[in-house]
Amino acid sequence: MKITVIGAGRMGSGLAMRFAMAGHEVTMASFDIQLAEEAAENIRQATGCANVFSAVNAEAAAWAEIVVMVIPVTSRREVLESLRDILRDKILVDVTIPMAFDPVRYAPPAEGSNAAESYAVLGEGSHVAAAFHTVSFTLLRKVAQPLTGSTFIVASDDAAAQSVMALAESIGLRAIHAGGLEHAPTVEALTPMLLGINKRYGVGGAGIDITGI
Amino acid sequence: MKITVIGAGRMGSGLAMRFAMAGHEVTMASFDIQLAEEAAENIRQATGCANVFSAVNAEAAAWAEIVVMVIPVTSRREVLESLRDILRDKILVDVTIPMAFDPVRYAPPAEGSNAAESYAVLGEGSHVAAAFHTVSFTLLRKVAQPLTGSTFIVASDDAAAQSVMALAESIGLRAIHAGGLEHAPTVEALTPMLLGINKRYGVGGAGIDITGI
Repeated sequence: MKITVIGAGRMGSGLAMRFAMAGHEVTMASFDIQLAEEAAENIRQATGCANVFSAVNAEAAAWAEIVVMVIPVTSRREVLESLRDILRDKILVDVTIPMAFDPVRYAPPAEGSNAAESYAVLGEGSHVAAAFHTVSFTLLRKVAQPLTGSTFIVASDDAAAQSVMALAESIGLRAIHAGGLEHAPTVEALTPMLLGINKRYGVGGAGIDITGI
Repeated sequence: MKITVIGAGRMGSGLAMRFAMAGHEVTMASFDIQLAEEAAENIRQATGCANVFSAVNAEAAAWAEIVVMVIPVTSRREVLESLRDILRDKILVDVTIPMAFDPVRYAPPAEGSNAAESYAVLGEGSHVAAAFHTVSFTLLRKVAQPLTGSTFIVASDDAAAQSVMALAESIGLRAIHAGGLEHAPTVEALTPMLLGINKRYGVGGAGIDITGI
């Protein structure tokens, strides 16, 4: 698949590494082509994969089948609005999580979740999924180790859910289809809850797994 | 411990069975003493335990150290208000979940969660926890089988959290302290998400477990 990743932080670059290693064509996107190319070069070096490219946001989004958004909450709405017309025909995977601190907690926008906000910005009939929230970026970036664990996927439509599940499974994750965007608050809010658990229990990577299916 | 269970449905009676089997003194409570005694008798018969009593709500709540509330959402606020003065000095464990259907989803009250609503009704300084949401009542009621699995516990204060964790562990569960009541929406909302997963995957008891701690 052709995957564009907007955001080159630890989570974005970690996901991009795994996508490249699974054989997908990956484009790192930024508003600044220099930053995008630096991110792509880092991923090529970390993985030894040549199938990692760079482009500015609009160009990268237009090229992709799936656009994975992993950028700070402060800039995501602006980026979404600037790419609205392009993203309407793509599958957008929103990995962002609205959090507040002291204590760490879920702090969603008026739409109820970041994924629902993305859907509201892109408009009725767009294809928005939320996924990868509880996957540790530390484990993503340990490229010598196979990736394991589960991820919940929620989506605005079943076709988007199936594509994102296939993407998640291609990098070694077990993908659980957790329903429509009405469950996005739950899936997004697991991360701040796990961050609190990490701190309370003095561990680095508390995670969630599903049982009984 | 002295545990009162308000609510004799499948979940309330299932928890009461496990509490009795763990050696706690258990009182089944109802607005109607006949219903309470029927519930207690059912639990004594299912478990062979004699340490199960019955009383009307106010009397049962006054007697208990921990009051576990597992009643329909429609009557919970009224019951809470009627017991406010008694419950303020107890630990209240709210197991109730606000749901809507088609599709099944989390539908919290204005306070953000049922547990937060309970705390608002009982008032500042009360002791409210939320727990047991993802424990299957089917497994609770299979009393010949040891109980396994995890439960997230959130609470208004650490002492309440510790008491409820001890109660959960006494019946065989792994108890995870997931933080304050700001995380109650997440813990409560897991159940409607799991119900949707049960339906989508054609299984009876999808559950959640924690990894990495």
